[in-house]
Amino acid sequence: MMRVDLNSDMGESFGPWKMGDDDALLDIVTSANIACGFHAGDPDVMARTMARAHAKGVGIGAHPGFADLQGFGRRRIRLSGEELANMVAYQLGAAQGIARAAGAELRHLKLHGALSNMATDEPEIARICYEAALKVAPELILVVLAGTGMETAARDLGATYAGEIFADRAYNDDASLVDRSQPGAVLHDPEEAGRRMVQMVREGAIITGSGKRISCRIDTICVHGDSPQAVAMAAGVRQALVESGIDVRRFG
Amino acid sequence: MMRVDLNSDMGESFGPWKMGDDDALLDIVTSANIACGFHAGDPDVMARTMARAHAKGVGIGAHPGFADLQGFGRRRIRLSGEELANMVAYQLGAAQGIARAAGAELRHLKLHGALSNMATDEPEIARICYEAALKVAPELILVVLAGTGMETAARDLGATYAGEIFADRAYNDDASLVDRSQPGAVLHDPEEAGRRMVQMVREGAIITGSGKRISCRIDTICVHGDSPQAVAMAAGVRQALVESGIDVRRFG
Amino acid sequence: MMRVDLNSDMGESFGPWKMGDDDALLDIVTSANIACGFHAGDPDVMARTMARAHAKGVGIGAHPGFADLQGFGRRRIRLSGEELANMVAYQLGAAQGIARAAGAELRHLKLHGALSNMATDEPEIARICYEAALKVAPELILVVLAGTGMETAARDLGATYAGEIFADRAYNDDASLVDRSQPGAVLHDPEEAGRRMVQMVREGAIITGSGKRISCRIDTICVHGDSPQAVAMAAGVRQALVESGIDVRRFG
Amino acid sequence: MMRVDLNSDMGESFGPWKMGDDDALLDIVTSANIACGFHAGDPDVMARTMARAHAKGVGIGAHPGFADLQGFGRRRIRLSGEELANMVAYQLGAAQGIARAAGAELRHLKLHGALSNMATDEPEIARICYEAALKVAPELILVVLAGTGMETAARDLGATYAGEIFADRAYNDDASLVDRSQPGAVLHDPEEAGRRMVQMVREGAIITGSGKRISCRIDTICVHGDSPQAVAMAAGVRQALVESGIDVRRFG
Repeated sequence: MMRVDLNSDMGESFGPWKMGDDDALLDIVTSANIACGFHAGDPDVMARTMARAHAKGVGIGAHPGFADLQGFGRRRIRLSGEELANMVAYQLGAAQGIARAAGAELRHLKLHGALSNMATDEPEIARICYEAALKVAPELILVVLAGTGMETAARDLGATYAGEIFADRAYNDDASLVDRSQPGAVLHDPEEAGRRMVQMVREGAIITGSGKRISCRIDTICVHGDSPQAVAMAAGVRQALVESGIDVRRFG
Repeated sequence: MMRVDLNSDMGESFGPWKMGDDDALLDIVTSANIACGFHAGDPDVMARTMARAHAKGVGIGAHPGFADLQGFGRRRIRLSGEELANMVAYQLGAAQGIARAAGAELRHLKLHGALSNMATDEPEIARICYEAALKVAPELILVVLAGTGMETAARDLGATYAGEIFADRAYNDDASLVDRSQPGAVLHDPEEAGRRMVQMVREGAIITGSGKRISCRIDTICVHGDSPQAVAMAAGVRQALVESGIDVRRFG
Repeated sequence: MMRVDLNSDMGESFGPWKMGDDDALLDIVTSANIACGFHAGDPDVMARTMARAHAKGVGIGAHPGFADLQGFGRRRIRLSGEELANMVAYQLGAAQGIARAAGAELRHLKLHGALSNMATDEPEIARICYEAALKVAPELILVVLAGTGMETAARDLGATYAGEIFADRAYNDDASLVDRSQPGAVLHDPEEAGRRMVQMVREGAIITGSGKRISCRIDTICVHGDSPQAVAMAAGVRQALVESGIDVRRFG
Repeated sequence: MMRVDLNSDMGESFGPWKMGDDDALLDIVTSANIACGFHAGDPDVMARTMARAHAKGVGIGAHPGFADLQGFGRRRIRLSGEELANMVAYQLGAAQGIARAAGAELRHLKLHGALSNMATDEPEIARICYEAALKVAPELILVVLAGTGMETAARDLGATYAGEIFADRAYNDDASLVDRSQPGAVLHDPEEAGRRMVQMVREGAIITGSGKRISCRIDTICVHGDSPQAVAMAAGVRQALVESGIDVRRFG
């Protein structure tokens, strides 16, 4: 039986500010990427989010990003390799600390925002971040963008990893995402997204806008929860997968 | 043979700003309490300090404080029990992450500044912080102010702990420190401090300004490195202990 | 003709996080207290909020608070008088800078959260903050809690000030607010709040829970916009005032 | 009689951390560029530094940089034009607030670190920052790197500006600074630096490493205070200027 994980970024509230509908998402996804306090989240948000994820059997992951709260970790900051490694080790360790205090365990790591973009553009950045993470947690599952240099970096390190595709984004022929400024870059119809995900999981390939197939490991699908539409999309994708006989369960 | 540990706060630089002479201290002390990025320190400072401590065989500890960089964690902030626990779990986890990435292991925890003062005044705060810390790291050694409610809190939790006295501070008859505003509150003569420490360690008691003995476990002596005088004081205390036949070695 | 101002805290979003419905409020209130980046707000949020307020003829004020984003400025932090003065001068100046870049001018200042609470409890704190503010902007109108030590502090400095009451809070017999934990402390019915405000403005007195009248200057009424109910409350209060023939217009 | 200003970055301490010898520099320079709390400095450091500068008749300027305390504003962060403008308006306003509370007035503005580097590489960034600054303070003197696009940007805005050269840096033939990684990029001999400055001021031209003259307005010379050597260099340059009959006095 085919299987796939559903993941979503969570715990992106901060202090008095709420973001996303984590409670709704925790009934849909099987893995939660939890912000670590640098670009979003704070120790209390992390603890609450992890406790809820744990109670619902959702896999808990660290989602480290640049120390840029105002910019939500979406602005590129050029750091040295040592600085990158320390930044990841710190956030991953902090997430482990909160997880353990909640009686849970951290299972995976996924890079956030500009850090993820830089690691896709420059696999050496992915390698540095992953190497640091594995020193902190050797059993960690690395969530990588399927078919990119992030995947190569994880494989070269001999790491356990999960290849990720996006439910709501169109792909270019080189496996990169169509830029959000282009028409059709973002999908809005849950049914269409659901059909597309079922097809990609079954074929074991990214299907690009031109219809090209790019074979790759697909272990997890990223969905969002930052709007009611996003939650509906996530639910629609899950339903389509389940109805197609694909087992939706957490990776690893 | 009697033995005692020497500990010092370290890793209190931040970004481009230096504080203290950590390199000098690492040749004197046996345990280092390393700031965790909330009141001082950053991931890079933490990594460098821990790598050096590890290379010199100095025991590595987390030194969490309030998230108040400008105030250096010296301003009291009233948090809920849940917030306190999360704050400690986060910083302790982060310190563990950095330690592991450096190939080292975290051994102890000591509260910083206003958090320590509040935990001394209100043992319930100590208990909350310690309980959270032990969930993250069950083998952790808690450094407590000897003879205070912090010690009671650690003992009640069944935790391994180390009782701490200060090399350069005079004591009141209730085992509290003489307020810095009082004459004689702070000792400046390394020889005097050394003699005093030897005496307290031998007697297993805090000796107050009035000459009163307060029996307590003395496992570690706190010294400072924030000035050349402080480093000389630390060296003087170590020398006095060694010359008196007391084994200076890390606790645990 | 009687007149009164309606004020509300605004610009409390931060980076990607939204708070409150500022656009709705700007059609209701006549004065906006804009967060200055320490407990909420950032330069971009400030600029956008001030530009909109200016376009709608709403008076612009600085709303400084403690540098505690996670705690939203609601946690008391004990600072020296010099630190308090500098903290207020910095935030007020920053708000002036943003206002001028938007072609607007800052008219008033209102203390936020724990800083306001401390200034009410200890009028010396109010005096220090106000004195610093007036050095930066001698023409500034100080918004004070009517009938409290804040008002005395403003008057003693010879400052121009506006006495403020709350639309949705019950009062004790000493002019302090009933603690939120008490039943009836917070009003939820816009009509009731509207009637109450009309009565207080007409009588020139705070009417307490026991029916006692406390005569005081009432220049402005504080309303909120952090929920649809709050916006409805604000609109209801405005409507009641207008229908009673009270001129709702900005102070000064 | 020829004249020139001497400027230095100051107020770069933060909370408990000291940086530079501001007191020594304030006896040497005629203009102080004071960090505004984003990359260094805090309201208390700003207030103390401005009060001392004011007492010694040293001209006070704002020295805004990116909001990156750990990176000391030396890491490039790509912001939108609107974000840049708001960031500058906020910091300039804050500096004005602190200056006024100290009974002083802000006279100039100089961009810091990565923001300055980006503004030199992309004059549009300089233009955006300067335009925002002039909206806040129309009388402001802009300190620009002599002979660069920053100068063009200031001139195009019709702004009052001061052209700046560096006492301790070698120049390329296009008026840019020799990269610090190159031999000879940084001068260490106060006498040599002093001779060079006298020559450049007299000739009204930057003299490059190859001996080329680049005519430009030279209104101010930048010196540093981050080490005893730097202070000696600053003193040496001042002495050489004075002995050559050049009037060392603040610009404007």
